[in-house]
Amino acid sequence: MTTHGEPGSVGVVATSTVRLFSDSDPLVLVSGATLGPVDVAYETYGTLNADRSNAVFICHALTGDAHAAGFHEGATRPGWWDNLIGPGKPLDTDRFFVISANLLGGCQGTTGPSSENPETGTAYGLDFPLLEVADFVTVHRALLAHLGIDRLLAVVGGSLGGMQALQWSLDHPDELAHAVVVASSSRLTAQNIAFSAVARRAIMADRQFKNGQYAAEGTSPAVGLSIARMMAHITYLSEDAFTEKFGRAPQFETSRRGFGIDFAVESYLDHQGTAFLERFDALSYLYLTRVMDYFDPFSNAGALDRVREHPVRYLVLSFDTDWRFSTEHSLRIVRHLESNRLPVTFRELKSAYGHDSFLLADPAYHATLKAYFDRALEDA
Amino acid sequence: MTTHGEPGSVGVVATSTVRLFSDSDPLVLVSGATLGPVDVAYETYGTLNADRSNAVFICHALTGDAHAAGFHEGATRPGWWDNLIGPGKPLDTDRFFVISANLLGGCQGTTGPSSENPETGTAYGLDFPLLEVADFVTVHRALLAHLGIDRLLAVVGGSLGGMQALQWSLDHPDELAHAVVVASSSRLTAQNIAFSAVARRAIMADRQFKNGQYAAEGTSPAVGLSIARMMAHITYLSEDAFTEKFGRAPQFETSRRGFGIDFAVESYLDHQGTAFLERFDALSYLYLTRVMDYFDPFSNAGALDRVREHPVRYLVLSFDTDWRFSTEHSLRIVRHLESNRLPVTFRELKSAYGHDSFLLADPAYHATLKAYFDRALEDA
Repeated sequence: MTTHGEPGSVGVVATSTVRLFSDSDPLVLVSGATLGPVDVAYETYGTLNADRSNAVFICHALTGDAHAAGFHEGATRPGWWDNLIGPGKPLDTDRFFVISANLLGGCQGTTGPSSENPETGTAYGLDFPLLEVADFVTVHRALLAHLGIDRLLAVVGGSLGGMQALQWSLDHPDELAHAVVVASSSRLTAQNIAFSAVARRAIMADRQFKNGQYAAEGTSPAVGLSIARMMAHITYLSEDAFTEKFGRAPQFETSRRGFGIDFAVESYLDHQGTAFLERFDALSYLYLTRVMDYFDPFSNAGALDRVREHPVRYLVLSFDTDWRFSTEHSLRIVRHLESNRLPVTFRELKSAYGHDSFLLADPAYHATLKAYFDRALEDA
Repeated sequence: MTTHGEPGSVGVVATSTVRLFSDSDPLVLVSGATLGPVDVAYETYGTLNADRSNAVFICHALTGDAHAAGFHEGATRPGWWDNLIGPGKPLDTDRFFVISANLLGGCQGTTGPSSENPETGTAYGLDFPLLEVADFVTVHRALLAHLGIDRLLAVVGGSLGGMQALQWSLDHPDELAHAVVVASSSRLTAQNIAFSAVARRAIMADRQFKNGQYAAEGTSPAVGLSIARMMAHITYLSEDAFTEKFGRAPQFETSRRGFGIDFAVESYLDHQGTAFLERFDALSYLYLTRVMDYFDPFSNAGALDRVREHPVRYLVLSFDTDWRFSTEHSLRIVRHLESNRLPVTFRELKSAYGHDSFLLADPAYHATLKAYFDRALEDA
């Protein structure tokens, strides 16, 4: 049953944690606010080569974590992007050194709003400062400095991760050669914001949210967080994928009609909403979705000035059935980059599975990534 | 300011209520369950002609009510389909006699799950029987009997109302000449069910829901119901309509970033969620959405047998940006009807506004309806 050690797996891995900023030497955010201490959880796969030219940084999406590949000790399920990262896979760990870290504001080892506020001894809650995508980049650059890496071959991310890859390329283009931006956006639409607004409302209006101090109060906004997750899952799949997976199939052959789980699709959503509670935090959900709402790098005059001087090469990918961040979102990114004469490869991939496709092992998608990474290494 | 009495308005109207079934002579539902007493709230506009051949029945959608046109005494806003119904309008009340009634299971005067259960003296709550679209038809036919009308010129409805129009035509084709089915469906997709499932979860998981006995307990599942409404509103508008109406506009020019209402679209959703609480009931939301989930008339062998013997004429309309019930839903209805050699006129209308378009006064849409109703009256 276990696939530990099989070809293609990086095998057993562990998450490390490092303190990158302290109370006395805090992280300075884009907003001017400071934060310390800041711990960062990360994993690495493969080996850094002698001239340190094979490092690829993985940026996770909204609810991801540092555990992108391989197996934690005793686990039967691998990291969230294990189909991409490993020996012989598109991000071939026999050749690339891959780094993955949990986001600032997250809840999987990196400091976030449910971490202890040193001033109060309880969770920051809503006293945690608001973040921007550029703050994620600042923290991850500090991690790279800690690892002794001053230049990346590539930054790769899907969805919110793609936003980080894009921001990184604009702010520090001299520190990376390639940015791979998958199923992402440079600017949310009103509909995108609307879905996140309802999710946040569900969390914050849950009486157990306690203005963000639920841990100290011994409560949990589990209802709100699970509603948020269930709703988000509807947007992660295409309508056709829902039809193909579930159709109108009943969950039980002999069920009595009612208001429980009558249809298979209801069971799926219920499971997604419940399972999420074990691994994610309501405050992180608020903070990270708000970061996405405000992300709009091209609205800043001069956003592309630096990258025009140190051109990064871009791979921008979208999926034809993704209605959360449709191809139009990717094309907007492409237009901004191309109008600044930056080298961009764009491809819209066919997939039945909507936004979630960026996590799946679609052959054409993975072939595209493999060819791109191979070429990047050759050109390095 | 007031438009009372202006050309095009039916003027001041009032909702009537009639008891159509009693405890001793109850309503028998499709499920076999019985219900009594059953009161029905309704309004009429225009005058029934001498040969009783000009009656048109309006079927409202999920959250509609009997008040389709004109103004309640002292009100400044007219009924929900006032742009369609009135002197000189497509449903010209100088020529048609229009009847509109609140649905069984509703909360605007017709008996529903928050009505008093005569056996307990408190609200039925979840003891209210599950309903089917055919049950709505049964109740409305009883209303017509009460009004002395044994045949309708047309039954007209949008969304859930279109489902009722379709069901009526299949079950009692000898009692109507035309069925007008707008922005509707004969069978929800898994995605459609998913949205409703999350809405119901928000309501039922609200600790104030109290297993449906919130009225007796003095609580209100207001948080859950407003979340349900906010989410539904996202599906009622097209993505382009959201962009056109709100874009990324901030709600306040000088607001501090946070987790409140930062964007105009958040203010819109907040308003929709809050205003809904004043006019709608959480139990009705559960019951009526579940009716839609299970609606699937063509899955019954013989569903079309009666209408083949007494052909009804159909007008089926969809809107190109409606992603709740896309044109594909309407085409499925059309295919079923046409394959049974029934006379169907189908049109996909252009509109920027998505599902909500069926409530709006789009010129091409209203011209289509006007021409259809004029012809129906001529042919009567």
